[in-house]
Amino acid sequence: MTENWTSSPAAPVNEESGAKATRRQGELTKPPGSLGRLEEMAITLARLQGNDKPEIKKIRIVIFAGDHGVAGEEPVSAFPQVVTTEMVKNFARGGAAISVLSKSLGADLEVVNVGTVVDPGELNGVVSSRIAAGTANFATGAAMTDEELGKALSAGKEAVKRSALSSADLFIGGDMGIGNTTSASAVACALLKMSGKELAGPGTGLNSEQVAYKAEVIDRALGLHADAGDDPMEILRRLGGFEIAALAGAYIASAQQGIPALVDGFITTVGALAAVRINPSVRKWLLFSHASAEPAHQKILAALDADPLIDLNLRLGEASGAAVCVPLLRLASDLHNNMATFAEAGVSEGE
Amino acid sequence: MTENWTSSPAAPVNEESGAKATRRQGELTKPPGSLGRLEEMAITLARLQGNDKPEIKKIRIVIFAGDHGVAGEEPVSAFPQVVTTEMVKNFARGGAAISVLSKSLGADLEVVNVGTVVDPGELNGVVSSRIAAGTANFATGAAMTDEELGKALSAGKEAVKRSALSSADLFIGGDMGIGNTTSASAVACALLKMSGKELAGPGTGLNSEQVAYKAEVIDRALGLHADAGDDPMEILRRLGGFEIAALAGAYIASAQQGIPALVDGFITTVGALAAVRINPSVRKWLLFSHASAEPAHQKILAALDADPLIDLNLRLGEASGAAVCVPLLRLASDLHNNMATFAEAGVSEGE
Repeated sequence: MTENWTSSPAAPVNEESGAKATRRQGELTKPPGSLGRLEEMAITLARLQGNDKPEIKKIRIVIFAGDHGVAGEEPVSAFPQVVTTEMVKNFARGGAAISVLSKSLGADLEVVNVGTVVDPGELNGVVSSRIAAGTANFATGAAMTDEELGKALSAGKEAVKRSALSSADLFIGGDMGIGNTTSASAVACALLKMSGKELAGPGTGLNSEQVAYKAEVIDRALGLHADAGDDPMEILRRLGGFEIAALAGAYIASAQQGIPALVDGFITTVGALAAVRINPSVRKWLLFSHASAEPAHQKILAALDADPLIDLNLRLGEASGAAVCVPLLRLASDLHNNMATFAEAGVSEGE
Repeated sequence: MTENWTSSPAAPVNEESGAKATRRQGELTKPPGSLGRLEEMAITLARLQGNDKPEIKKIRIVIFAGDHGVAGEEPVSAFPQVVTTEMVKNFARGGAAISVLSKSLGADLEVVNVGTVVDPGELNGVVSSRIAAGTANFATGAAMTDEELGKALSAGKEAVKRSALSSADLFIGGDMGIGNTTSASAVACALLKMSGKELAGPGTGLNSEQVAYKAEVIDRALGLHADAGDDPMEILRRLGGFEIAALAGAYIASAQQGIPALVDGFITTVGALAAVRINPSVRKWLLFSHASAEPAHQKILAALDADPLIDLNLRLGEASGAAVCVPLLRLASDLHNNMATFAEAGVSEGE
């Protein structure tokens, strides 16, 4: 692999701002620690933003969309493959969940088409970076060539560059790709040395028989690609999807740029795991939003030592769970910045 | 007890709007059920509002503040009793957590002083309904007289009347009262036939020795007031606080007025349990926001068959956890109302 940029270190975090924010939390008019994870979020944002009064003003949400060869040839999804392209159009027209959420949050939404089978044509708000008409079927060969993997990682990096130009202080990546829980599960299996049987789940709505078949497809692929070994780049290339690799590239670039990234659900967490295996310094720039209904999500989160903020039994992808968490980060910052201290309010402190 | 109004039935809910909302959720461009609890929230709001496209425009947050005789005579809190009054002033000046949250959410905030030991004087945004300078110590006698309980319940009802006049479509009650986890735990013990040892927790920050003493105080009081039996009114009168009884009155009145109430943490959930024991028809108008860090909260929630939306390890009270949940309810409504259907978007449905 020639993607040398991926190994450059992440930006340093500001421990002094973190320490100042921690002190401030102890001075606010509430029993110490009583705002729980809201305190922790404010302190983390302070450390990452280098600002002891952190703020989330500008949010950039980028959905990477791509198709999966395996979904064209194996019955691993409850939806036909054309839905990836149809949903790209739905994003552009404002009808998808993430379109609605972005509008409600005042966030910028960008869609990057990294390789749908069907070309949706020119669409407003959609960057066309179609690497190919979907990946190759990883059950019979490598999903991508070296060159394709490089392009997918770069698509993530370029999206983060545009986010930085827009002065985003939070990056949220999302996924769209029929069949992508199969690919993400396969990547996670290879990275975590687990079997398809351990990690495969219902995705958009498979029954238990279909899940068992999905696990079988994954286990067959793991056998075929066993010589990828521990190499996260090679695992991504052989088993990943364009959107999963783009997400990995985006998380790496976001950490290098010093933009905190709020990770969504199952697919994006696998992208984050790949990113951290490629470049461990990325981890400290990742925030985790929600626990997905996809059963294996917990195992991927555990491997990243991540404890997401909420669990609303979501399993949609397209950054929806991360978007739903944004108001919690904002309220955590508002509380941190605007509450009175004991001294300011003339309130007696505890024992 | 002459509080006959408390037994009048809650307003009916609109099952037709609920059914329409359920149908709509199945038509939106996402795998069925993939928005998890956000779908459930939108459907519940539709049923309660009688509107298949529910909205939360006007939110009324009312904090009931009162002192507890037991906290004046026994070491059951990490904070001195004067803090109740100091915090009432802090609410009025905008420095408390709930002041900041109300502003961020665009919610109306009202504070009702139902009986602080120290009179804070006239304050902007604070309704003075001081029933007494705190309740009597329930470890040595009844916390309230019949008349005082009636006044406390009415204070809740009056606050809901003002909420209805302000056209609130969501009512949020909150508590402030040094020592009120002791009173709330005692009420919950009596209602659930559990011991102080089973339910007493650290509150604002007691150590394990102090928690053991708090449990002892509660168990002594439970013995003293054993003849209250199963009567929720009598349990409230003997062991409750003015703010806990006001919350119970507010939840009953809110259900009677047909205003959904979003319950906060430990204290308010005990108020809700008392309300439901007094008038079971109230239950269907209650929404539950967060799981508190106070360990016994789970048991009270279980007794109400309630599954709160989030768990951020909060233990502040003053409606802060409920306020933090408001954006989730709003986003659930936005998704429900504004996402495209499969037909509108031309997206293929699953198998």
